[in-house]
Amino acid sequence: MEPIKGGVTAAAGFYAGSCEANIKYEGRTDMAMVFSKEPCISAGTFTSNVVKAACVQWDMDLVRSGRPIHAVVINSGIANACTGEEGFEACNATARAVEEALGVPYDSVAVASTGVIGMQLPVDRLCAGVRKMAPGLEESIDAGTAASRAIMTTDTVNKEIAVTFDIGDVKVTLGGMSKGSGMIHPNMCTMLAFLTSDIDIDKALMQKALSEVVKDTFNMISVDGDTSTNDTLLLMANSLAGNRKITAENEDYEIFKEALFYVCRELAKKMAKDGEGASRLFSAKVINAKSKDDARILARSIISSNLSKAAIYGCDANFGRFLCAMGYSGVMFDQNDVELSFESRAGKLKVFEYGVPLDFDEDEALKILKEDEITVSVDMHEGSDEAQAWGCDLTYDYVKINADYRS
Amino acid sequence: MEPIKGGVTAAAGFYAGSCEANIKYEGRTDMAMVFSKEPCISAGTFTSNVVKAACVQWDMDLVRSGRPIHAVVINSGIANACTGEEGFEACNATARAVEEALGVPYDSVAVASTGVIGMQLPVDRLCAGVRKMAPGLEESIDAGTAASRAIMTTDTVNKEIAVTFDIGDVKVTLGGMSKGSGMIHPNMCTMLAFLTSDIDIDKALMQKALSEVVKDTFNMISVDGDTSTNDTLLLMANSLAGNRKITAENEDYEIFKEALFYVCRELAKKMAKDGEGASRLFSAKVINAKSKDDARILARSIISSNLSKAAIYGCDANFGRFLCAMGYSGVMFDQNDVELSFESRAGKLKVFEYGVPLDFDEDEALKILKEDEITVSVDMHEGSDEAQAWGCDLTYDYVKINADYRS
Repeated sequence: MEPIKGGVTAAAGFYAGSCEANIKYEGRTDMAMVFSKEPCISAGTFTSNVVKAACVQWDMDLVRSGRPIHAVVINSGIANACTGEEGFEACNATARAVEEALGVPYDSVAVASTGVIGMQLPVDRLCAGVRKMAPGLEESIDAGTAASRAIMTTDTVNKEIAVTFDIGDVKVTLGGMSKGSGMIHPNMCTMLAFLTSDIDIDKALMQKALSEVVKDTFNMISVDGDTSTNDTLLLMANSLAGNRKITAENEDYEIFKEALFYVCRELAKKMAKDGEGASRLFSAKVINAKSKDDARILARSIISSNLSKAAIYGCDANFGRFLCAMGYSGVMFDQNDVELSFESRAGKLKVFEYGVPLDFDEDEALKILKEDEITVSVDMHEGSDEAQAWGCDLTYDYVKINADYRS
Repeated sequence: MEPIKGGVTAAAGFYAGSCEANIKYEGRTDMAMVFSKEPCISAGTFTSNVVKAACVQWDMDLVRSGRPIHAVVINSGIANACTGEEGFEACNATARAVEEALGVPYDSVAVASTGVIGMQLPVDRLCAGVRKMAPGLEESIDAGTAASRAIMTTDTVNKEIAVTFDIGDVKVTLGGMSKGSGMIHPNMCTMLAFLTSDIDIDKALMQKALSEVVKDTFNMISVDGDTSTNDTLLLMANSLAGNRKITAENEDYEIFKEALFYVCRELAKKMAKDGEGASRLFSAKVINAKSKDDARILARSIISSNLSKAAIYGCDANFGRFLCAMGYSGVMFDQNDVELSFESRAGKLKVFEYGVPLDFDEDEALKILKEDEITVSVDMHEGSDEAQAWGCDLTYDYVKINADYRS
C-alpha cells in the first residue's frame, strides 16, 4: 500500500465538481458533487441518532436497496434535518436535477447535507447548483481538492487522502474526503466522509469491511460528544481497476481492508485534530484490557471528557481526570492494576502506577504536554486487547464558535 | 412544609465548625465538620464511578454497616482519590483525631474530600484541623453557613437550605449544605451534600426515601458530563425532634419525603446554576413521554450537550441542537411527534411542532433567552410521564477554570 496525492478523484473514473450555490455561505463554494459514469456498488454507515436528517434516510435506502449508484451531491450550510416532508422533497429534487443534467437515474444519486438543523433547504439554489456543476465535472486531483473544500463548514483545513495497493498484479486506488469539526462523537461514523475506489469487489464484502473498519477509526474520535443527525460515510466502487474480483474473505480482501483502515483512520485523525477550536490532537491508547470493547470504551471515555480536554489545553498533567473518566465509562476494572503515562514527540512520562500517584518532574511533563500531538497511554494489566481513540483539547474557541454558529 | 433560614445546623442538636487547615488553599477556610452528640442513623448515595475515592469507600462502609454516626469531617483542596493504601490511612487518622477530640468512636465518623485527584492528603494538617475545630463547634446558623463556605472549591456561592414540616403536631427540621461546580454529571448524586435532620425514622425507610428522591434531583443535574470519583450525599438524623417514629410508608413518610425532595432539588439547582463558568441556569422539561425513565434520559441529554449549552450561552434559539441531543440519548421516539418551546420569565415561544420547524420571531426568542433562567420545554405527545433536568451554559470561563485548576 502506498499513499498518493489526491482524494475522491484519485481512483479511475471518478469526477468531481463544486460551486458557489449560496445555500447559506456567501463568497465561497458550498456545493460539491462526485460522479462516476460507470455504475458503482456502494457501502455506507450512518448516524445512530434517532433524529436522522432527510438525506441520511435517502442514502440509507439507496445503499440498502443494492441499486447501482452514480453520484453523490453534497451541500454545506443547511443540514436538512428536522425538516419533515419538505426535507425529502429537497433530496428528490436534487436527484432529479442530476438525472436531467447527467442522464443517470435519479434513484442512483446519493445526497448529503451539513449545517444548521431545523431549517429548510432552498431547493431552487440546490438544483441550480447541480446544473452549474454538471458540465464542468473533472477527473483531476484539483477538482477533488476543490470538492473537499466546498463541503467544509467550521473546518479550518480540507481533508482528503488516497492510496494505491496491489490486488494480484493490478494496481487499485482508494481515495476519499471528509468534513467534520463539531457535532462529532464516536457513536457511528462521523459527519461526512466520501470514499471512492476503482476496485472490483462483492457489495456485501465491501459493506462488511467498511462496518468493521469504522469501529476502530471514525467511531473512535470525538470532538464534543454530540452525535450528529447527519453522520454519513459513503464508499463507492466502480470496478474500473480491473482486478480479479474479490468475492471471499481471502488475502485480497485483507489487502483491501488494510487500505480502507488506513484511509479511514487518517481521515478520522484529521477530523479530530481539526475539531472546533482545537489547538492539539489528543489521543488515548489503552493496552492490555480485558476485551476489545473495554479498550475502546475506556479510550473513548478519556478523550471525550471535558475535564481531560481542558487539562490538555492547559498543558496540565492532571492525570486524575483521565482516571476519573475511565472510572465512569461503564467498564469494570481495579484502579490498583492501572498504569498511566503521558507521551508525545518530546518523550514519555509515567505518572501513575498500581493505584498510586508517582512523583514526577513537572517540567518534564510540561515539555511533553506542550507538543501538538499528545497521547495518554494506559496499561490496564488485565488482558491483551488494545484500542486507540482520537480527540482534541477544549478551548475558548470551541465555545466562541458554538455560541454563535447559527446566526 | 416551610423554608427557614439556615443549613446543616438548622435541625436540633447539630453543631458545625470550620477552620483554615492549609490543605491546599491559603487564606481561606478549607475544612468543616458537622457533629451531633446524639447518635444518628444515616443514609447515603455515592458516586457510580468505578474509581472511588478512599473517603467514599470509607463512608459507604459506614452507612451500610448500620453503625450510629456522630460526625462528618470534610476538606476541600485534595480529593483523596487514586491514592492507594495511604488514602485509607488518611481517613482513619482523621476519624481517630475526632475520637480523641470529641470522645465518639472513630468508626462513627464519616469523612469527605473534594479537590485534586491523585495527590496525597497532608494527614498532620487534617488532624490539626480537627483539633482546632472540636472545641469551637456551634449550633448557630452562622456556624452552618461558615461550614458551607469552607467546603467550596470553584463554587462562587455557598449553598445551604433548611425547611421545617409537621409530623403529627411535632415540628421537624431538615437542613443541608452542598458544594459542587465542576465534575458534575447525573450518574448518581453529585459532588458533596450533607443533610441533617432531627427526625425520628427507620434507617431503611430513610435510605429508601433518599435513594428515590436523588433520581429526580441530584441525578438530574449536569455541569460537564464528568461523574466525579468523590460524589457523596450523606443524610444524618438524630431523632431529637421527638416526632412519632416513622416506621412505614404512611402519610408521615410522604411528608418527610416531600421535604427531602424540596431540599435536594433546591441544593441541586443551586449547584447547576453555579456550574463552573456558568452564566445562566439551563433547564429541560420533558412532558408526555412514554415512561419516567425516557423523560429523565431525554431531559438530561438536552442539558448535557455541549452544543446545546453553547447555544444557551450565545442566546441562540438553535433548537435543532436540542432535538439532536434527544436523538442520540438512546431513547426511541418519532421526531414527528415532538413539540419544542423556549421558556423563561420573559415568556414562552414554540419553535418546532410535529417534525417541522415553525417560523418564529427571532427578537422574541432573544428576549426569552437573555434571561438568567431558561427552560427548554419538550412535549413528546407519546405518553404521560415527565421529568426535569438542570444544567448551565458552556462559557469561556469553564475552559479557563479547567485549563488551569490543578496548579
